[in-house]
Amino acid sequence: MAGTDRTSLPEGGKARRVYLLLRDEMSNGTYPPGSHLPGEQRLAEMFAVSRVTVRRALDALDADGLVARRAGSGTVVRAQDGAAAVAADFTSLMPQLVAMGQSTTARLLSFSYGAAPDTVAQAMGLEPEARVQTAVRVRSVQDRPFSHLTTYVPEAIAANYTEADLATTPLFRLLERSGVQVEAAHQSVSATLASPDVALALGVSVGSPLLSLRRVVRDSDGQGVEYLSALYRADLFRLEMTLNRVGGDDNRHWEPVITPAPEQEAAE
Amino acid sequence: MAGTDRTSLPEGGKARRVYLLLRDEMSNGTYPPGSHLPGEQRLAEMFAVSRVTVRRALDALDADGLVARRAGSGTVVRAQDGAAAVAADFTSLMPQLVAMGQSTTARLLSFSYGAAPDTVAQAMGLEPEARVQTAVRVRSVQDRPFSHLTTYVPEAIAANYTEADLATTPLFRLLERSGVQVEAAHQSVSATLASPDVALALGVSVGSPLLSLRRVVRDSDGQGVEYLSALYRADLFRLEMTLNRVGGDDNRHWEPVITPAPEQEAAE
Repeated sequence: MAGTDRTSLPEGGKARRVYLLLRDEMSNGTYPPGSHLPGEQRLAEMFAVSRVTVRRALDALDADGLVARRAGSGTVVRAQDGAAAVAADFTSLMPQLVAMGQSTTARLLSFSYGAAPDTVAQAMGLEPEARVQTAVRVRSVQDRPFSHLTTYVPEAIAANYTEADLATTPLFRLLERSGVQVEAAHQSVSATLASPDVALALGVSVGSPLLSLRRVVRDSDGQGVEYLSALYRADLFRLEMTLNRVGGDDNRHWEPVITPAPEQEAAE
Repeated sequence: MAGTDRTSLPEGGKARRVYLLLRDEMSNGTYPPGSHLPGEQRLAEMFAVSRVTVRRALDALDADGLVARRAGSGTVVRAQDGAAAVAADFTSLMPQLVAMGQSTTARLLSFSYGAAPDTVAQAMGLEPEARVQTAVRVRSVQDRPFSHLTTYVPEAIAANYTEADLATTPLFRLLERSGVQVEAAHQSVSATLASPDVALALGVSVGSPLLSLRRVVRDSDGQGVEYLSALYRADLFRLEMTLNRVGGDDNRHWEPVITPAPEQEAAE
C-alpha cells in the first residue's frame, strides 16, 4: 500500500512509545530538521526509561531515515522530503484544500445501508434506528492517505446517487445535486489515537495522533442530511484560520477572514 | 496533584497500548456509556495481541472504574461523572469557553526571558535570537487541568506586566492593556501525543492524544506580539464552530456564525 508505515518501529513496549513520541516531536516542530535531539542520558531521564530503550528507539528512527547518528556529534534530525502537509481552511467550505494545485483522490473502503448508530441518529435529529447509508472513504494527496472519512446520509437522500458517484465526487456536491437545500453545519474538532483499522488505512502506526472532526450538515428544515466523522493524520494535516480584530471601542471583536472556496475542491 | 492519572495503567508494552486506545474510544464516543465492548477474542484480533494482553488492559480499565465486567454479560462502558468537556468557540475570541458560568484558573509553571526559538522568531517576524518572555501555564476548570499553554512575547511588550499579572489575567487582556494595537491572528490546529512533561502537568498518560493549536497575534504594523503554543486534553476539550450556507446561486458560500465573546472569559 502506498504510504504504509515503516517496518523498523519497535514492536511493543517502551521503545515503541519513545519512538512514536520522538517522531511526533520531530513532525510537530519541537525538534525541527537540522536540530540535535537531547543526549541518550537526558532522553532516558525525560521518558523515565533505560538508555538501552532509548538506543532501540533511536536505532529505529535512524533505520527509517528520520535521524542521523554520528559518534561524537549526537543525533541530528533529518529533513523529510515527502508530500507537503495539507493545510485546510476552517472558515469557508469547511476543511478544504487551500494550497493551489493540490488535488486529492478518494478510495471507497465500504458502503452499506443499515440502522444509524444512536449518536448519529441523535445528532442528525433522526428517529432511533432510522436507516442510513454509511460510507467509509480514504482521501489521499500525491498517493499519501491523509484522511479517513465515515459519512452517514439518510436513505431517502442517498438514493439519489450511486456508490460510483461517491468514489469520485465529494459528498457535499452530491447532496446539493440531489436537491437538498443545505442551510447550516456544525463542526467540532478534537484529537484521538489511531486504532488498528484506521492506522492500516492511513498508513500510520497504531497509537499515532489524529485530528478528529465531527460535522452535522442540516437542510432548511433543520433536518440532518449528512453526518461526517473525519480523522486526519496529524503529521500531514492541519486546520488554519485567520481572524481580524475589528470594530470600535465598545464593539471590538474578532472576525474570521473568509477565503473564497474554489468549486473544484473537496469539502472533506 | 488534582486530576493525576490512574495508577492501574499497565506500565509498558501492548496492554498499555490497548488500554490507551480503548479509553480513547470510550471518551470519543465510539463506545458510549452503557454500550458493550467487543468480546476478548474479538479485541485480541482487532489489536493483534493475545487474550492475556486484552485481559490485562480490561482489568486496568475495570480497576479505574471505566468499565464494568460481569461474567456472562461482557464488558460494559461506565458513565463518567467528572467535569463536563470544555467546549470552545473557534470563530469569536478564538478558543474561548462558551458554556455559561464555566470559569477557569491558571497556574504559572515557568517564567523566563531569553532568546526566541528559531520557529517562534520566524513566525513572529522577529530578528533571530530576539529576546522574548516565555511563560508556561496550565489552565484548569473545576480543578481539572485541560490546557498547557506556552507563550512568547517580545521583551519590550512583556515589560508592561508582571509574573503575578500573568498568573491571574489572560495574556490577551494584558497585551491590550499594555497599549498594543492588536490587528490580526492566525491559528493552526492539529493533534499530538502527550510528552512526559506535558502528561505530568495535564494529569494524563504519556502518549495520550492532545489537540494542538499554534497562534500568532500581530499588531497594526504586522509585527508579532504573541506566539501561543497550546495543548488541550482531547478527552476534555473540543473546538466548535457553526456555519450558515448563504448567498445566491452564483455566490453561495459558507459563513461562520460569530458568537459574541463575553469579556470576562479567557482567550486561551
